[in-house]
Amino acid sequence: MGTNEDLQPGERLDDLLTHDLKIIQQESMFSFSLDAVLLARFCTVPSRGNIIDLGCGNGVIPLLLSTRTKANIIGVEIQLSVAMLAKRNVKLNRLDHQISIDNADLRHYHQQAGHGAFDLVTVNPPYLPVETGQHPLNPQIAAAKYELNCNLKEVITACSKLVKSGGKVAIVHRPSRLAEILFVLQQVNIEPKRIRFVHPQLDQEANMVLIEGMKDGKPSLRLLPPCVVHLPSGQYTFELQELLEGTNNSLSYM
Amino acid sequence: MGTNEDLQPGERLDDLLTHDLKIIQQESMFSFSLDAVLLARFCTVPSRGNIIDLGCGNGVIPLLLSTRTKANIIGVEIQLSVAMLAKRNVKLNRLDHQISIDNADLRHYHQQAGHGAFDLVTVNPPYLPVETGQHPLNPQIAAAKYELNCNLKEVITACSKLVKSGGKVAIVHRPSRLAEILFVLQQVNIEPKRIRFVHPQLDQEANMVLIEGMKDGKPSLRLLPPCVVHLPSGQYTFELQELLEGTNNSLSYM
Repeated sequence: MGTNEDLQPGERLDDLLTHDLKIIQQESMFSFSLDAVLLARFCTVPSRGNIIDLGCGNGVIPLLLSTRTKANIIGVEIQLSVAMLAKRNVKLNRLDHQISIDNADLRHYHQQAGHGAFDLVTVNPPYLPVETGQHPLNPQIAAAKYELNCNLKEVITACSKLVKSGGKVAIVHRPSRLAEILFVLQQVNIEPKRIRFVHPQLDQEANMVLIEGMKDGKPSLRLLPPCVVHLPSGQYTFELQELLEGTNNSLSYM
Repeated sequence: MGTNEDLQPGERLDDLLTHDLKIIQQESMFSFSLDAVLLARFCTVPSRGNIIDLGCGNGVIPLLLSTRTKANIIGVEIQLSVAMLAKRNVKLNRLDHQISIDNADLRHYHQQAGHGAFDLVTVNPPYLPVETGQHPLNPQIAAAKYELNCNLKEVITACSKLVKSGGKVAIVHRPSRLAEILFVLQQVNIEPKRIRFVHPQLDQEANMVLIEGMKDGKPSLRLLPPCVVHLPSGQYTFELQELLEGTNNSLSYM
């Protein structure tokens, strides 16, 4: 769909592997990774209505969600240059009728969108607290990896304000933050309903957790089968291949 | 080691499959299940020192732990008839020098054992809140399945009082209670450190969770590889077979 003519210096055009979607990625910005792809497959999407992706980066999650639903999708991104790239990606894939990108602070977005305006909120937040480690020199990459613009509690509080009662909130994060995530979700009346851990290989520790909660839901948590990324040979497992290619949208757990 | 001469009406002698251990089980009482076996393998045991198993039932966890450590092991059981059976099981296996059984209420046991007296506390508590479902008619089985004598918060609070600072608390429970367990653990200063989910088959939801925390530990949660019980053929997986037989005590995660 896109062509190399759209590219600026330092950019490359990547294939999203599904539905002919393409995405421009910038060397100086955070490139999407498996986390975003898995979240876009894991979340329970409404067939119509309104979806919002918080901290959308270059727009990978809105793009992928567009293959699963007719709902309107908004991507919110606080960094202007990154939001501009997301807008170009929407245009490149001719999805302007379904996806819009807003350069805004997710913590205050309910003030313009309204409380409870969304059926589904997705978020792939920065994983690392500010105080951990050395931050990368590039501020755009740093903001995607470290909680510089908002912390976990602010992100989940924003989700709770934006989602309607009975609506879903889907998050991907590191398993090491599990206890904190579950605690904060419940504090803001999002009941955890489905959890899936992602293991690089079957005999390895999980390095990712997918969590979906329901605003004002009743307690009933399901712990889904493990998602295993690689075979011992290093190849993708059959499930991962299907998820990446989006060839099977009826997968029971994704 | 034991012989059928020790049996009373309604009792049977089962093989614990490891180290020639035997166990008398009573038809009218709760029989041990895979949960107890996996917990006894999962927990990090001190080589010496003091271990306590809360709500020990017929004593299966203390018996299995005795194969992994020289530590003194106490089993606490509130039901007199069940505690008597546990005592007979200790005697049957000639483990009186290492294991003692106390007929007591775990909620108050710190008053006689002392605060922080143990290096490791294990517990396989009843899984179901009192208000759920129909309770079995048999009161001994009901007390093992439903939170009749103590609820989750009381159990974990007792663990926290009994374990020493830096000591371990290992729990097996249902995944549906995960958020509550993690919340209560942190409330009583037990930091969750290792979690392992148990799936009946690789493509099925988890029906058990093993959690180990450290009293006054620093936050650093590891989400271990999934424990899968059965192959698609219905046979035990290789890992489960090793766990049941206790042939490999150096398993990295159990």
